[in-house]
Amino acid sequence: MKTTLEILQTAKRTAGLAAPGTEQKNRALLAMADALTAETDDILKANAVDMQHAAGRISPVMLDRLRLDESRIASMAEGIRSVAALDDPTGRVLQEVERPNGLRIQKISVPIGVVAIIYESRPNVTSDAAALAFKSGNVCVLRSGKDAFFSASAIVKALRKGLAAAGINENYVNLIEDTTRQSATDLMTAQGLVDLLIPRGGKGLIRACVENAKVPIIETGTGICHIYVDKAADLDMALNIVDNAKTSRPSVCNAAEVCLVHREVASAFLPRLWERFRDRVELRGDAAVCEMIPAKAADGEDFDTEFLDYIMAVAVVEDIDGAIAHIAAHSTHHSESIVTNDPAAAERFTALVDSAAVYVNASTRFTDGGEFGLGCEMGISTQKLHARGPMGLQELNTYRYVITGNGQIR
Amino acid sequence: MKTTLEILQTAKRTAGLAAPGTEQKNRALLAMADALTAETDDILKANAVDMQHAAGRISPVMLDRLRLDESRIASMAEGIRSVAALDDPTGRVLQEVERPNGLRIQKISVPIGVVAIIYESRPNVTSDAAALAFKSGNVCVLRSGKDAFFSASAIVKALRKGLAAAGINENYVNLIEDTTRQSATDLMTAQGLVDLLIPRGGKGLIRACVENAKVPIIETGTGICHIYVDKAADLDMALNIVDNAKTSRPSVCNAAEVCLVHREVASAFLPRLWERFRDRVELRGDAAVCEMIPAKAADGEDFDTEFLDYIMAVAVVEDIDGAIAHIAAHSTHHSESIVTNDPAAAERFTALVDSAAVYVNASTRFTDGGEFGLGCEMGISTQKLHARGPMGLQELNTYRYVITGNGQIR
Repeated sequence: MKTTLEILQTAKRTAGLAAPGTEQKNRALLAMADALTAETDDILKANAVDMQHAAGRISPVMLDRLRLDESRIASMAEGIRSVAALDDPTGRVLQEVERPNGLRIQKISVPIGVVAIIYESRPNVTSDAAALAFKSGNVCVLRSGKDAFFSASAIVKALRKGLAAAGINENYVNLIEDTTRQSATDLMTAQGLVDLLIPRGGKGLIRACVENAKVPIIETGTGICHIYVDKAADLDMALNIVDNAKTSRPSVCNAAEVCLVHREVASAFLPRLWERFRDRVELRGDAAVCEMIPAKAADGEDFDTEFLDYIMAVAVVEDIDGAIAHIAAHSTHHSESIVTNDPAAAERFTALVDSAAVYVNASTRFTDGGEFGLGCEMGISTQKLHARGPMGLQELNTYRYVITGNGQIR
Repeated sequence: MKTTLEILQTAKRTAGLAAPGTEQKNRALLAMADALTAETDDILKANAVDMQHAAGRISPVMLDRLRLDESRIASMAEGIRSVAALDDPTGRVLQEVERPNGLRIQKISVPIGVVAIIYESRPNVTSDAAALAFKSGNVCVLRSGKDAFFSASAIVKALRKGLAAAGINENYVNLIEDTTRQSATDLMTAQGLVDLLIPRGGKGLIRACVENAKVPIIETGTGICHIYVDKAADLDMALNIVDNAKTSRPSVCNAAEVCLVHREVASAFLPRLWERFRDRVELRGDAAVCEMIPAKAADGEDFDTEFLDYIMAVAVVEDIDGAIAHIAAHSTHHSESIVTNDPAAAERFTALVDSAAVYVNASTRFTDGGEFGLGCEMGISTQKLHARGPMGLQELNTYRYVITGNGQIR
């Protein structure tokens, strides 16, 4: 077994080598996809071991996320092929100036270096993350959840076979072999070896990283998203947007958890919301809401909870500033939406709500790399530095200034 | 006395208010500059108190950095006026797409929010940092070194008078009143209140922030910068560049600390370097260097030390890859330069050296906001996320996606 430190040292060395060009990377990605398909049997065997270990220990929903079959592996391979088709984000000249002293200063996009990803038990994250990191020129170090470890190992083995078949250093894709908590801590504290750590998972994982990481991290994915129904809202539209944002896929981070309603339209809107949701979504209301509809009384936690379920907290606000203040106090800065036909209200909301994605008259469910036209995503950043919202290939690059002179001194 | 927490809560509230427009900000900056000049007497009195406390406790160089006089205050005011003249970085539409479903997605530059700056004993940092943070739409929380506290207080008082005179909320500029270590720790751990922490100072401060911060930080300013004299170098040019990079201002982060020389030109170059530096710069060489010139023998630390003094470590390398490997092992990723007339060598060096600024045939001393044409700088980032190299106004912004629809659901 390789230790985490050994794997990181190899990764760092690999990141220092001359990087493959776009054509080489694309060829390698296709070979990785082919290898994944070719190794389907081994991957399914490994997955069966994971499933057996996990049976009875994790929920049916989590078990289903863990389970692979031929078609799921085929779609992982397809995912890799689609990354090959995306533009290479590296080597772009982002800015170029020639200074009066003759120095030419170019700002050029370059890979970040060693990107570590800590995730949970979805085996497809293994191939998705590896493909995105590789296409953007990074060396990835994957740390799978324990439940999916054998699946992840088989997938990484296949991906590395693909790299080797394409004549590329297989150490571009690495899997941490220690599945104890220690290896997560090792990644968080690997200063000088990990250039970026991306935690992909639940609140506990993200919080542990924020609390303990000494390497740069990007927080992803916790979404307490709000829909604010303004007094100038089209209530039919509002109802459709709230319904879609809450129920189209409640388990994802861009699903809405909270609905805020302007006092002047509350008595018109809330009974319709109650009708729409009554058998499908549990509404938890503040006092004003509970006076108007038979919602369950919300407790103190409900406005700070990412339910990821058919539950929605609902509050009445005095006006748009009340909505903005509520969001400032409770949001995770992921996605919020205002439903309004008043341009001034829309402008105030988008100017003052400090979230990665702020919507006017649309569902928060669109905060997604594919929906934004990025073609893919590594996660949704909810922090403000470096990348905000869906992180595509460009967000997996940094830049370097290259300055060319002919002897300039200062 | 206001506690650090009270100041941060006020700052966060201020960051949530509607931001002043460009004209308002510029008018306020001019008023801040005027107030600084008008308060010269009070600032000089406060500075005299700091100087008296510090006398005998800090070095003459540090005492000189601490000392203010009328002309230094005038140039601080001039600095603020020059920030007023720069372009406003906020509200720029960085990207805009209309998706097939009709959603318009705009990526818009916005202030980061509450920016905390921990610095040491240069009073001018107080006004520089406040002006840059304010112009970029941020609320700044300044934490001055203890030695400069009375000066910083008088400066901030003047700046807030200027804001008030221009009709702007004076809480855009704040000074932490607790000068114990506790307040630095409070800033590092103020999750949800500090959006960005910028430590400006020595290695100890930066390291303490990296180790302890739970809020996003940008590391700045530690520079172990290298000049590599390639075998295809013009040796006259190399000599001038090494001389300039080492001696034009040894105390700054973009000064060179290490010179690496290709073995094939070492016997031609090193004696000339020795002649040029003999009475001015102490050379500390590796074994190969010491065989050729009477340099002092370098010890293990010398290649990992930011001397900030008339001292330079010198080593002979086998080839360009030896130079690149040495830099990878010892650099702080600030600025490095190759002197060569070989385009292939220049290309290899700029592709593989992973620093914020990589030079061909120029002095590392140019890594500076002004020299890069940014008009100013908040510091030089040596990390890879968000901002790299000189941080100007644009780097003090983040972005937000504003998505406008007409009822789109997914």
